[in-house]
Amino acid sequence: MEQVINLENAAAGLPEYWSPKVLGKVNDQFVKVAKIKGELAWHKHDDEDELFLILDGQLRIEYEDHFVDLQKGDFHIVPKGLMHNPVCEDECLVALIETVTTLHTGEVIMEKTKSIKAQLES
Amino acid sequence: MEQVINLENAAAGLPEYWSPKVLGKVNDQFVKVAKIKGELAWHKHDDEDELFLILDGQLRIEYEDHFVDLQKGDFHIVPKGLMHNPVCEDECLVALIETVTTLHTGEVIMEKTKSIKAQLES
Repeated sequence: MEQVINLENAAAGLPEYWSPKVLGKVNDQFVKVAKIKGELAWHKHDDEDELFLILDGQLRIEYEDHFVDLQKGDFHIVPKGLMHNPVCEDECLVALIETVTTLHTGEVIMEKTKSIKAQLES
Repeated sequence: MEQVINLENAAAGLPEYWSPKVLGKVNDQFVKVAKIKGELAWHKHDDEDELFLILDGQLRIEYEDHFVDLQKGDFHIVPKGLMHNPVCEDECLVALIETVTTLHTGEVIMEKTKSIKAQLES
């Protein structure tokens, strides 16, 4: 899979919000892009960190006792085990680095939850 | 380590070429930035893929029988085991995702080689 992919273009071309798409695999981590708007859900990943890189727009990651605000070009790693909730009023394009088994809504299964299989096929 | 870091600014602020700096760790992978110009060295990583994301400028990754050209915003994953050589005529800023044990010059130890310890402290 020796591809060259522009992250922002790939994210901008996604057909729906909150539906991550896998673009590549580096060692045991997937590289994904997503187009998001609004909020996802409070959740955590017990054993896996999750990297957010902002490709366009801005994103707030809410934690239980504080939050971090991310602008275009910023990255932030959500440590494993911490409850968090991504929120953005306007559309935001993000890249994600996650262990291949990580579910984007953590232990929470909801209407927005997309299986890894769906993320590979989208 | 709940930090917010702008990748391009971090890379632009590096004091020297070919000296990657570790900015974070997502699972078993380091997030690094580097400022590069010229060419590194032909090398490979037997057991580790290596992700390049172009933050500014352009980069050619030479393989033994072809090459790929990367522009700002593009990412490319060098598959494990493949001989490769990053080359750029003008300054280029890159982010890297690599297994925590990956040496940036692979099995080649040369003047440009920076130890993982040096990459953490730079």
